[in-house]
Amino acid sequence: MQMVERVHRLLTAHMKPGDRAVDATVGNGWDTLKLCELVGEKGKVYGFDIQKEAVLRTKERLAQAGFAGRAEIFCCSHSEVEHYIHENIQAFTMNLGYLPGGDKQIVTRSESTLRALEALTKLLGPGGLGLVLVYYGHPGGLEEKAAVETFMASRTSDWGQILRTEIVNRKNCPPILYIMEKK
Amino acid sequence: MQMVERVHRLLTAHMKPGDRAVDATVGNGWDTLKLCELVGEKGKVYGFDIQKEAVLRTKERLAQAGFAGRAEIFCCSHSEVEHYIHENIQAFTMNLGYLPGGDKQIVTRSESTLRALEALTKLLGPGGLGLVLVYYGHPGGLEEKAAVETFMASRTSDWGQILRTEIVNRKNCPPILYIMEKK
Repeated sequence: MQMVERVHRLLTAHMKPGDRAVDATVGNGWDTLKLCELVGEKGKVYGFDIQKEAVLRTKERLAQAGFAGRAEIFCCSHSEVEHYIHENIQAFTMNLGYLPGGDKQIVTRSESTLRALEALTKLLGPGGLGLVLVYYGHPGGLEEKAAVETFMASRTSDWGQILRTEIVNRKNCPPILYIMEKK
Repeated sequence: MQMVERVHRLLTAHMKPGDRAVDATVGNGWDTLKLCELVGEKGKVYGFDIQKEAVLRTKERLAQAGFAGRAEIFCCSHSEVEHYIHENIQAFTMNLGYLPGGDKQIVTRSESTLRALEALTKLLGPGGLGLVLVYYGHPGGLEEKAAVETFMASRTSDWGQILRTEIVNRKNCPPILYIMEKK
């Protein structure tokens, strides 16, 4: 099973109609689309991406599915989430690395990623779920991977439980999935 | 979510009535009970444990649930599975370490664990699922943990995908879960 499919299964098991959610890095919009489906008509999804191309592609995808009214997509860094969201969320997704099929020079960076993680883990309500998929096979990827690992390992168990899932029998930097379950 | 609950969720998503399954270390019988529930009346569960106490406890648990006819429980090492099972299985579970609430001197050992893993990964049919939970906070536990990791990492990607899930923000050797997805 692909990691992306794993992420969608975890979201499906967790989310309820009416929920609020964030896709911190909309990219091609697949996670945003899934979240919009799961939150239903009364829910709300906030999406972020620094690439105009990603925002446009995602908005188009949502419009085609009839979900345009369920989402607000912002063309800005995920490190800015705290300025745009003023309510608790029940879930967030975050894909770190570059946009598949896009410009590989434009990647997420440790500093903004950590700011985004700080903000999102605070916005997450009790029982909330955060899913962070780390692609690190690009220049600077290992540094970001290490920064994320340190962030995750330093949450106290009072915050909740954080799991790391990785493929052990594949080479070439398969992605790592962090599952954050807030108490 | 406890790792045991995670194991049961994965089994529930994977298994179908009529399936064959193995609980390689029945222990207190909770996994065996879950497997019996999932394989239904036409399925079959094979269970193994070297401790008579564990076998009796499990048989009693199954009888109480009305599942006695769905299982065969053997009082022998999981390293012997190949002598008892002569058909493909769709899933197996394995808990490594000692029996919770039992004699902590009696633990699984690397050599028999590896023999059991070799046999079970061969018995697993296409699309099969193996779930191996490693408790290692006891004398000899680290050695077994290392042996299991080497076994897992050395399966080629032709065999299928193997994931390791661990809790990153808890001390005192929280268990590690391997999810083996055969092609």
